[in-house]
Amino acid sequence: MNVFIIGVGLIGGSFAIDIKAAFNDAKIFGIDGNPEHLENSVSLGFIDHASDFDQLDQADVVIIAIPVDATVKVLPQVLDQINDDCLVFDVGSTKKKLCKTVEDHPKRRNYLAVHPIAGTEFSGPKAAIANLYRGKTNIICEVEKTAFKLQEKGMEIFSRLGMRIRYMDPVSHDKHIAYVSHLSHISSFMLGKTIIEKEKNERDIFDMAGSGFASTVRLAKSSPAMWAPIFKQNKENVIETLQEYITNLNQFKELMENDKFDQIYQEMENTNYIKTILKGIS
Amino acid sequence: MNVFIIGVGLIGGSFAIDIKAAFNDAKIFGIDGNPEHLENSVSLGFIDHASDFDQLDQADVVIIAIPVDATVKVLPQVLDQINDDCLVFDVGSTKKKLCKTVEDHPKRRNYLAVHPIAGTEFSGPKAAIANLYRGKTNIICEVEKTAFKLQEKGMEIFSRLGMRIRYMDPVSHDKHIAYVSHLSHISSFMLGKTIIEKEKNERDIFDMAGSGFASTVRLAKSSPAMWAPIFKQNKENVIETLQEYITNLNQFKELMENDKFDQIYQEMENTNYIKTILKGIS
Repeated sequence: MNVFIIGVGLIGGSFAIDIKAAFNDAKIFGIDGNPEHLENSVSLGFIDHASDFDQLDQADVVIIAIPVDATVKVLPQVLDQINDDCLVFDVGSTKKKLCKTVEDHPKRRNYLAVHPIAGTEFSGPKAAIANLYRGKTNIICEVEKTAFKLQEKGMEIFSRLGMRIRYMDPVSHDKHIAYVSHLSHISSFMLGKTIIEKEKNERDIFDMAGSGFASTVRLAKSSPAMWAPIFKQNKENVIETLQEYITNLNQFKELMENDKFDQIYQEMENTNYIKTILKGIS
Repeated sequence: MNVFIIGVGLIGGSFAIDIKAAFNDAKIFGIDGNPEHLENSVSLGFIDHASDFDQLDQADVVIIAIPVDATVKVLPQVLDQINDDCLVFDVGSTKKKLCKTVEDHPKRRNYLAVHPIAGTEFSGPKAAIANLYRGKTNIICEVEKTAFKLQEKGMEIFSRLGMRIRYMDPVSHDKHIAYVSHLSHISSFMLGKTIIEKEKNERDIFDMAGSGFASTVRLAKSSPAMWAPIFKQNKENVIETLQEYITNLNQFKELMENDKFDQIYQEMENTNYIKTILKGIS
């Protein structure tokens, strides 16, 4: 099985590691615009051959793991070049624009729209790890538009990697993921910004920061190259979630200004319900 | 050494565990308004004797580990009852009001104002753990107002528990801790609220939430009984930090509305500087 991975960073590299481990016959080919990343992924051992777009006709599976703006450009080109039995899937955090882009492509049936809910705040091939996807949710959009045999090929990979499958339409996907993922990133980035601005002349202050702060601001380490295109593609949904978040923060501030600390207590107690929701997410 | 712990929850209980391990001669007495907590702490083994305020004259050390509004009431009563060689310290997340409250108390020299930057999002005696304080920063305010011999007694405990000491005046403490701790809790609580409100009719959606969301919203599990009084006591500083955070979020939203995604990229890249700051905080 020839697996071509376009983008050998955290996500693509972690797929390479697990597919090599799960499929004896897998040969992994890497394609990356950054020669240093490609070199690193070969010397780290999870890519067998540095490759390029010209060789895509030899692929049984192509995984596109690059920022979502680049994926929109690259996916149609990949579909143009693959053979009829090749499965192509992307792993991006937005799905609507991409599905729209290829809806009339003659090889639409070779494409599966995939979003594995997995990652870390790190990036690049050195961030790739084994078992990143084990136990994680994998959202598949418009599954009915993919050829049945190629759906099966995808499921075999996701199943051996230990993922749980959820089906969803791309519009719902983009709407809900704005709440449970994209908004968290903005809240974290702006928290980091607020504190860096305020405390820039007081380096010692960060001795006061504990694990709670580290946890809340962790996502502010994330890659701008990955996240700016996500916010752009999911602009309307993200703006809506952000407005609701700002409204809630303003209400909290007003409660404080008016000394309504009983209501603040109540707000927090209600939100403790998040414990139930988080059960099972680590 | 008779150590009285007022409030046998996560913080007080974790002190009990480590002090028992570090001092062979330590006898730990627990005082708690909640009889069930007191019972649990005895059966968990980190409190040797359930006790009450009448016995405080036998104390060599008193640790007050209760919400900050209760501490303001309890600290003067404790100071009234202890003997002259007894060290009293609290562990609250606000320091200005407390230091002000006891500034003219005849036993002010027996009190050390302490804030260990340690904890988890859990609470109660069952949340108490060993080594919670190892490698953590311990902020001490107005150290010069505490009797030298009692400073030494405190340092011996903090040193054996593995803490790093930082000295700070209470006004600066409350101002900076608003940024690196109190604001994180509000951002997390309001993130949890926004998502619970939006998704209350769509339970399945939480399958889409990954480790990034879990990390960002972790502090929303925190105890309202602990946090409402902190926000009340540090009202002015917290409102100021919250306003700056809201301003930054509004600016981000405006950049999105005006399609300034290059600037959004730049904002995020600048904030990636948080990586440097977080080094060493786990």
